[in-house]
Amino acid sequence: MIRFRQHSSRRLKNRSLRGAVFSYTGAMEQTFITWIENQLASESAAPEVVLGVGDDGAILQGRLSKQVLVADTIVENVHFELDIERLHRIGHKSLAINLSDIAAMGAEAESALVSFALPRSFTLENAQDLFAGIFATAKHFGVVVIGGDTTCHDGPLVISIAATGRISAEAQCPDGWRMDGAQVDDLLVVTGALGGSIGGHHLDFHPRLDVAVAIQHRVPINAATDISDSLSIDLSHLIRKSGVGAVLQCDQIPLSGAAHDLAIQSGKSALFHALSDGEDFELLLSISRENYQRLEADPSFDVPLTVIGRCVGERIGEIEDAKTGNTIEIRGYEHG
Amino acid sequence: MIRFRQHSSRRLKNRSLRGAVFSYTGAMEQTFITWIENQLASESAAPEVVLGVGDDGAILQGRLSKQVLVADTIVENVHFELDIERLHRIGHKSLAINLSDIAAMGAEAESALVSFALPRSFTLENAQDLFAGIFATAKHFGVVVIGGDTTCHDGPLVISIAATGRISAEAQCPDGWRMDGAQVDDLLVVTGALGGSIGGHHLDFHPRLDVAVAIQHRVPINAATDISDSLSIDLSHLIRKSGVGAVLQCDQIPLSGAAHDLAIQSGKSALFHALSDGEDFELLLSISRENYQRLEADPSFDVPLTVIGRCVGERIGEIEDAKTGNTIEIRGYEHG
Repeated sequence: MIRFRQHSSRRLKNRSLRGAVFSYTGAMEQTFITWIENQLASESAAPEVVLGVGDDGAILQGRLSKQVLVADTIVENVHFELDIERLHRIGHKSLAINLSDIAAMGAEAESALVSFALPRSFTLENAQDLFAGIFATAKHFGVVVIGGDTTCHDGPLVISIAATGRISAEAQCPDGWRMDGAQVDDLLVVTGALGGSIGGHHLDFHPRLDVAVAIQHRVPINAATDISDSLSIDLSHLIRKSGVGAVLQCDQIPLSGAAHDLAIQSGKSALFHALSDGEDFELLLSISRENYQRLEADPSFDVPLTVIGRCVGERIGEIEDAKTGNTIEIRGYEHG
Repeated sequence: MIRFRQHSSRRLKNRSLRGAVFSYTGAMEQTFITWIENQLASESAAPEVVLGVGDDGAILQGRLSKQVLVADTIVENVHFELDIERLHRIGHKSLAINLSDIAAMGAEAESALVSFALPRSFTLENAQDLFAGIFATAKHFGVVVIGGDTTCHDGPLVISIAATGRISAEAQCPDGWRMDGAQVDDLLVVTGALGGSIGGHHLDFHPRLDVAVAIQHRVPINAATDISDSLSIDLSHLIRKSGVGAVLQCDQIPLSGAAHDLAIQSGKSALFHALSDGEDFELLLSISRENYQRLEADPSFDVPLTVIGRCVGERIGEIEDAKTGNTIEIRGYEHG
């Protein structure tokens, strides 16, 4: 239901799982995901589904515009550490990760459905702090929270949000930005600066909706995604789906202050963190040189765009270091 | 994101909540819900939102038709007991409760976004069983699963689904079925039989999409909801929102076999269970006599419709027993 309806919990007799021969590991999870995607492959042919499973968002045919639907769940001890002082920021994050996906589709955010499973230890104030964080972000980005539900249970905090967006019929790419359209000789461009998100950015980041909308008004983009797992992982997805390779000018990759800070602690380089840390939530765009030049001449937004490399027709799915010719290792923050 | 993406968990240092003076109880949850709805009240005026928070589904303006969006989460030990033999049925339930909401809006189901938080004890087979239950139900009802995400964690199984539906432009009520439109002298009508859902129906029920679509082609409905909390609770919501009272012919309420079975165990009457048990997931409709007669003459669907009472202009928000004149107590299954 769409009402914020009450589901207090009661403790049922919790039979343990019989037949659990091995535990649910990351590798098995990936197998499961692939299995699901195979199950669903044929479903994307349904007439309303312009774009189904496999990209940052799904697109359904709309009226004057296409509608984007996204969903993302964050779980205590996986995506955040529960800290009563941070509930507002955790709320912000739960919505902002969805808005980042909408931006990565080249869409304007529209509405959100919010579902909570709240720990029984929560006070009313805790729950309100959490929701206030979601709601402040929704207001800031013009997103209407149109419903959801809430459950209280003997377990961790889980926030599950589904959100919708629209792609303007006047957009340069009225069908949205997909991951699989990168072309040989495209420039690879990122917004903002990368790395060290765990220092705080992962709770406070600004989803790049304004940039996405501004670019949609100016020039077409061949492929896009948001950097959520890590630059190297998300870039590898984009180039693999597009059937191209990438050559990176590593000295051009914009390094955040947090990446430098973390490098001091970790003993690795700031570049390592920019390539490997998750949850930057910046945009990664693949764009023709000509269109990039048009955009550069009058960007009409404040966030810096940086060219970090280009797409090539060789070493498909691999990321090459332009300076050394070596393949850059694809790695990201491992939750597990 | 809309990809089925991997989020394995790692155990972070779990700081306990500071300042938790009292635990999060059902009463507080209700206060929280009311607070959220107040926060959102002004949001429903947004141009795309035909119907926002407060009903079974939210409706956004669509192309030739209106789109319905719903979201519902089920949590282990709250909405089901985890049993490896039942994972397929639990998967079915997680989607079917959303489809029941779509039916209660007078819409046809369209798409679903599925998010899991899976217990670390899960095997791959467990996860597949669960998803297979969702997918079989999606296929049966013509619902396209367009994405979602999955996380693995040290906690209970949580399944969060958001679904979309469309209301045909040729429907008798192209703006959908709301809860607040019941009129004095309307007949109150239910599908199927009620009570005793905990005996198994709550995992196996058939969401009433076919009935909803068939009725939408035949006659207008003044108000509708699905019976998820209990007949008495959901009816009380409908009549309160509509500003009417209800008089029930209790001897007309269709009692399920499970309600009779449960009555033997509980020592209460089957009628008590039909009025008070949750998760029947039947439709409750408020319809004019004239339109009901038209429908009755040629129902064009197999599920029985039963008139159980009528709406009146007195005792607003109360449910009266036609036989005794007493007020029927509003009660449902308490999770807490």
